Amino acid sequence: MKNLGLLSALALIGCAVAAPPGGYPLSITEYYRDAKLDHFSSGGNSGTFKMRYLVDAQYWNPQSGPILFYAGNEGDIMGFYQNSGFMTTVLAPQYEGLIVFGEHRYFGKSFPFDKSVAFDKDHNQYLTVEQTMMDYNELIHEIRYQYGAMDKPCIVFGGSYGGMLASWLRMKFPQTFQGAYASSAPILYFQGTPGFKESAFGDVITQDYAKANANCPKIIQEGWGYINAIQKKLDPQELTDLSTIMNTCAPLKTSSDIDNLYNHLMNGFSYMAMTDYPYETSFLNPMPGNPVQVACDQLKDIVYPPPSSDSVKDSKGLPDRQKTVLQGLLNAANIYFNYKPPFKCTNTSDVDGTGQLDGAGWDVLACNQLAMPTTNGASSMFNVNDPFDYKAYSADCLKKYGLTPRYQWVWDFFGGLNVDLDFHSHSNIIFTNGDLDPWYTGGVTNPIKKNDKITVIFMTGSAHHLELRAPNDLDPVDVKNARTQIAAKIKEWCDEYFPPPPKPSAQQFIQ
Amino acid sequence: MKNLGLLSALALIGCAVAAPPGGYPLSITEYYRDAKLDHFSSGGNSGTFKMRYLVDAQYWNPQSGPILFYAGNEGDIMGFYQNSGFMTTVLAPQYEGLIVFGEHRYFGKSFPFDKSVAFDKDHNQYLTVEQTMMDYNELIHEIRYQYGAMDKPCIVFGGSYGGMLASWLRMKFPQTFQGAYASSAPILYFQGTPGFKESAFGDVITQDYAKANANCPKIIQEGWGYINAIQKKLDPQELTDLSTIMNTCAPLKTSSDIDNLYNHLMNGFSYMAMTDYPYETSFLNPMPGNPVQVACDQLKDIVYPPPSSDSVKDSKGLPDRQKTVLQGLLNAANIYFNYKPPFKCTNTSDVDGTGQLDGAGWDVLACNQLAMPTTNGASSMFNVNDPFDYKAYSADCLKKYGLTPRYQWVWDFFGGLNVDLDFHSHSNIIFTNGDLDPWYTGGVTNPIKKNDKITVIFMTGSAHHLELRAPNDLDPVDVKNARTQIAAKIKEWCDEYFPPPPKPSAQQFIQ
Repeated sequence: MKNLGLLSALALIGCAVAAPPGGYPLSITEYYRDAKLDHFSSGGNSGTFKMRYLVDAQYWNPQSGPILFYAGNEGDIMGFYQNSGFMTTVLAPQYEGLIVFGEHRYFGKSFPFDKSVAFDKDHNQYLTVEQTMMDYNELIHEIRYQYGAMDKPCIVFGGSYGGMLASWLRMKFPQTFQGAYASSAPILYFQGTPGFKESAFGDVITQDYAKANANCPKIIQEGWGYINAIQKKLDPQELTDLSTIMNTCAPLKTSSDIDNLYNHLMNGFSYMAMTDYPYETSFLNPMPGNPVQVACDQLKDIVYPPPSSDSVKDSKGLPDRQKTVLQGLLNAANIYFNYKPPFKCTNTSDVDGTGQLDGAGWDVLACNQLAMPTTNGASSMFNVNDPFDYKAYSADCLKKYGLTPRYQWVWDFFGGLNVDLDFHSHSNIIFTNGDLDPWYTGGVTNPIKKNDKITVIFMTGSAHHLELRAPNDLDPVDVKNARTQIAAKIKEWCDEYFPPPPKPSAQQFIQ
Repeated sequence: MKNLGLLSALALIGCAVAAPPGGYPLSITEYYRDAKLDHFSSGGNSGTFKMRYLVDAQYWNPQSGPILFYAGNEGDIMGFYQNSGFMTTVLAPQYEGLIVFGEHRYFGKSFPFDKSVAFDKDHNQYLTVEQTMMDYNELIHEIRYQYGAMDKPCIVFGGSYGGMLASWLRMKFPQTFQGAYASSAPILYFQGTPGFKESAFGDVITQDYAKANANCPKIIQEGWGYINAIQKKLDPQELTDLSTIMNTCAPLKTSSDIDNLYNHLMNGFSYMAMTDYPYETSFLNPMPGNPVQVACDQLKDIVYPPPSSDSVKDSKGLPDRQKTVLQGLLNAANIYFNYKPPFKCTNTSDVDGTGQLDGAGWDVLACNQLAMPTTNGASSMFNVNDPFDYKAYSADCLKKYGLTPRYQWVWDFFGGLNVDLDFHSHSNIIFTNGDLDPWYTGGVTNPIKKNDKITVIFMTGSAHHLELRAPNDLDPVDVKNARTQIAAKIKEWCDEYFPPPPKPSAQQFIQ
């Protein structure tokens, strides 16, 4: 190391960051900032892109209020703002916090390249976890400066992948994020987790459906059997029948069409289990309360086990039993895809089924650093595809995106193979999970040994990040209790960083 | 986030890392590993380069011994191995540790590109702190695997920039590095540190020389005055006289030649202060013990203040007083440059003066992320160049390396502008500094408030990372005490991670 003392004297060049002119709007406002495209290899000369973020200052107390920041995940940031009511309508007013939502690069309106080429191999190399974390880290530095909140704590929130980012931001940038609340964040859902079964994902979904009605997953499974048989034969009349029953937008013709139909429906059932909220919502798609129950209700009139006479086939095309079960399958899946008008035909080209989330961007993240190997084993209601095929997945990623998945990257970068040892020194993180959510199987669900600074909450009756949503009378008691615990913990973190003025003692009152 | 459950079943592909065949050599051994050139934007398809590392297993107890890892800084790794005796000859045998030294990319024998082009703007973009930290993180993962030390703690060591890396590695990868001992690591030596004077660097050096002899810095300063006057006039006879006195390899002709002479000598005086060790060493260059004292001894016969008659000039060329002072200046500087034969002429083209360290690689790091603004103010013995000229420095970096210095990068990435708040949640780091070392002015020298997990040691009589060197009878008492404290702290960290078997209780003995 050597000093830089060799140059002649000139004036110091300061740097200026624009503050919101003439104060700042109180209600939710959309901003765009120049984010560096490449934080790591540009030698200080990175290009920039317009990164969107939202600020809602209606509750903020500039004297003492913390920054409450949502680390955007794989979708339009507005969707997360609208579905994080615990943060925006409970905690923000309670703690007089400044609400900030950051949009993830390559999603929503924060595209560094034209969306038509952004994910291809010549443009997707900047869609990484580290780059995104730096975007958020720098955004919060700017916010602190612009709002005169240099000394205020910032708590980072997130659900699902956003929750993963929240916990990771606290781990890597504790100077910026004084605490993290990671809701349903499966940060351990990667290759090699000790004691982890890849098939646990499908098993939890299946159990959710069995809870609604013990026959429900069995009838669904029966339906897959019929679809598989049709795929094997590819009989024109049967294909026509299936297309009609499934109300497909285009007639099913090939084996690949049937694959797409299966994946489409499977995703519908999976997402209903993930977002099995007790009241009507519109997070991924509009859905009624308890969608898994409502889906199973579509099948409740189907006799099970099937009467033996049903297997007799009288005419061309599909037998009645098959038609009944397949119709039930569609009706059940449509609780996810088609709950509200305008009703749509079944679009089997939508194999992602992610509704408001952006599947293509997530695929790039998964093909690079975040491959989460989920499969369906023998006890699942889906077709068995266990074990996960790493080789085929890698080949597919290379072909589609020019990416080679780094299945061990998360362990190298964050640790987690031995949670108790690896997370021993981390602090101020809340991990929540619910037993209805298949992702809990890759979450932090046990207390970290010898580390009481990480709070682990497991809730019965809760689906994917339910407690991050606005409170509702129909919420299960565990979710209600969790919110109380989370609110107290966040207050503790904020007070630790920015202590409130000491209360006058009794002695002082007497004087 | 969505699952990856859509592919057909094939066998899981495992990964294999070669273990040292047939056991491993005990004595120090040089290895090369394939390090990823780009950890951040290569989508899993990074090219690799040969990264050198050393393993010394002679003391290691595979049952219980920790990994003691030195995070190489800006030079050949062998130099650091030879000058970190406290680690290699005291702590390693004491704790039966596995010694590992990692070489920094773009230094020593770990060049990703041919050395002739590695630092130019088309090849220097991978010479960054984050990339280097990932190299070390991955190296230790491999070492743990190869040596069957998955459950063993790893303590990271480093001096100077290596110490900065050590503390930063603990901050960012606590799952890999269970503790860090950062010796003389000026992690706060960056633009904008509160209460920090850029000129403190030159002031500490000046104080070191004044401690040896109150007149010493004054005579040195007198010498600069003569050199400055010669530079102003550029009189041929005076230039010849100066070239002769300074024993320059090439005659001094231009103003720029004189600049180089000044910088060359200034670096000599600076490095003597930095490495003012109490016994003979050969870290940067071979030097006697207490080199600052020995340098000042070269000037002790020069009367000061100068007698008034000395200012009279009798003939062409430089007056006797000037010749005497300038000769003294060279003799003093040569304690650094020319202590041992073969004696060399004064090579003014060596403006780095870093001896074994590699100046070019450091320049790239500084021009990118690690610009450490040192200047000389009015109370320094060097020419005043205060304040630091950021604009000129940035222009120079852009021209030379295509880099734009990010003066705030360290604050954004690691924090430190408010040490007590920013480092509140970090743990298991030792920061040492010594009062003879100009770099202490940018070090962590005060305890972190409300955080007793960071150990701060300040030593009187110690130069740059003296205590990291092998113990010597001549070491000042503060250095001796510091080693005891450091050893105890490292044991505490190791035991916390890998507890020793419980000692049998008295009760058990009775049974």
